[in-house]
Amino acid sequence: MAVYTDITETDLKAFLAEYDTGDLLSYKGIAEGVENSNFLLHTTKGPLILTLYEKRVEKNDLPFFLGLMHHLADRGLNCPLPLPRHDGQLLGELSGRPAALISFLEGMWLRKPEARHCREVGIALAKMHVAGEGFPLTRPNALSLDGWKSLWAKSRDRADEVEQGLEEEIGAEIAFLAAKWPRDLPAGVIHADLFPDNVFFLGDDLSGLIDFYFACNDFLVYDLSICINAWCFEKDGAYNITKGMAMIEGYQSVRPLSEAEVTALPILSRGSALRFFLTRLYDWLTTPAGALVVKKDPLEYLRKLRFHRQIASSAEYGLTS
Amino acid sequence: MAVYTDITETDLKAFLAEYDTGDLLSYKGIAEGVENSNFLLHTTKGPLILTLYEKRVEKNDLPFFLGLMHHLADRGLNCPLPLPRHDGQLLGELSGRPAALISFLEGMWLRKPEARHCREVGIALAKMHVAGEGFPLTRPNALSLDGWKSLWAKSRDRADEVEQGLEEEIGAEIAFLAAKWPRDLPAGVIHADLFPDNVFFLGDDLSGLIDFYFACNDFLVYDLSICINAWCFEKDGAYNITKGMAMIEGYQSVRPLSEAEVTALPILSRGSALRFFLTRLYDWLTTPAGALVVKKDPLEYLRKLRFHRQIASSAEYGLTS
Repeated sequence: MAVYTDITETDLKAFLAEYDTGDLLSYKGIAEGVENSNFLLHTTKGPLILTLYEKRVEKNDLPFFLGLMHHLADRGLNCPLPLPRHDGQLLGELSGRPAALISFLEGMWLRKPEARHCREVGIALAKMHVAGEGFPLTRPNALSLDGWKSLWAKSRDRADEVEQGLEEEIGAEIAFLAAKWPRDLPAGVIHADLFPDNVFFLGDDLSGLIDFYFACNDFLVYDLSICINAWCFEKDGAYNITKGMAMIEGYQSVRPLSEAEVTALPILSRGSALRFFLTRLYDWLTTPAGALVVKKDPLEYLRKLRFHRQIASSAEYGLTS
Repeated sequence: MAVYTDITETDLKAFLAEYDTGDLLSYKGIAEGVENSNFLLHTTKGPLILTLYEKRVEKNDLPFFLGLMHHLADRGLNCPLPLPRHDGQLLGELSGRPAALISFLEGMWLRKPEARHCREVGIALAKMHVAGEGFPLTRPNALSLDGWKSLWAKSRDRADEVEQGLEEEIGAEIAFLAAKWPRDLPAGVIHADLFPDNVFFLGDDLSGLIDFYFACNDFLVYDLSICINAWCFEKDGAYNITKGMAMIEGYQSVRPLSEAEVTALPILSRGSALRFFLTRLYDWLTTPAGALVVKKDPLEYLRKLRFHRQIASSAEYGLTS
């Protein structure tokens, strides 16, 4: 839940005058996104999303995020399209914050996705990877090995508060991943946060991907490992191989994995489980008790990490070939 | 800002199946209302508001609120219209809460209303009072004299924390109002909370009134005194007689005030200033420091109360006749 900044209709109208949007009919702050303030606008030309970028987003990254959405939408991916102002810029300013006007995608995210939806997600992820080719800007993944080490440095002293023995276990895990992390896999632009709330469906049809504010350059199959972690486990912690198989098959129907990528999947899945474990652990340890933010349980990702650690080969994810 | 309850698309579709709404395209939790969870739905037949009534709303009051909106909209007032289910009911249940589907009003509330907007508000308020005639249900005003006394009983011991001398001043004010409160003025259904965020405009035209969840039966001119308090003071605390005059003239162009109502306006304005002072004082004293709720300053209404106390006649509000 977000909406940090209120905006006046006078400021908003002045902002919209730089765009070709028709007349403003209404605007509502919506509970979407965590880092930014988002508004749903109705105009005489249809609905739009207005995003105000709050402090947690690095302003220098905005041309990458907005340019990427434009690049992907141009290549036929269903994703929000930032609208250009009359001067051609994708970014303006409103209430003292960088702000963008973005096309509205109809659709709903699934609270209880099934295997057939996982297949659609695999297909869409691979399409995004293909559509991302040729995008000229780059952004390193701030939440890969180096980022994990610095998050861990800020949390390790208190990690045993969450579960006894964590300091030793996670320290060893990071050392292992640092030693064994692959160096030479197909890379490109990845979404890096394709959780169920970032994928819209209309009925059983995937209608679009949203929230590209963690997108960066990294191994493409690492993005698939994030989706496996985000979509293919049940609430009780069990891996659902039917969902995993559907997702991987969907992915490969668009972009077949190389042998090196298949081999790397277990270690990448350990890495991506660790990545979400570490950010959740950090938030868990630093969010004040009274705050109205839902603290996500870091142990969910610890359990996933342990699952991946005992995987002998990618076949156990449901990878057939 | 609200949205307390998440809903799944499966539950929502089952809920909507009881209505004639077309297909669901999207739904977003919106930051509107304080007592309830509100969602903006897009359907193939247009936008709708879905309201889930949270615990702070008395379930027994819902037929009054929803029936009133229906009654007023039926009589041509621009206000949200609760849609009937196939079984004719205006109220359903979703995620374990009473829930209603309500027409969506385009428009925006004004952060900086001017005198011409105050005139429109006066007109709309009077139209609402006329349209409310014949509504068969009744609901006593829980925030009149008796309600003030019980709020005060819960706050008086700590009132001097907010300003030295408050315990004595407010105690005397309540005693005065209890002795002098009018007994025989034209009464009917009042909105009781028609603040700027509950009035929508499209350009300079008033497009509708929303949020009838404080509506009740009371003196009609008491409702006008609430609007004078809510709309006709500047941020520096000064009464703006141009706005007051415009609002009262607007009101009287639809429903002229009787002599008794004119005479009663200063004391009613003291009462309505006290009413908002007391709820804000109570919230101020009881909201935990860490909560992400904006605490509204009770002293704003103390200053208004003091202004009304030194009014000699209603002419000072801008009432001409």
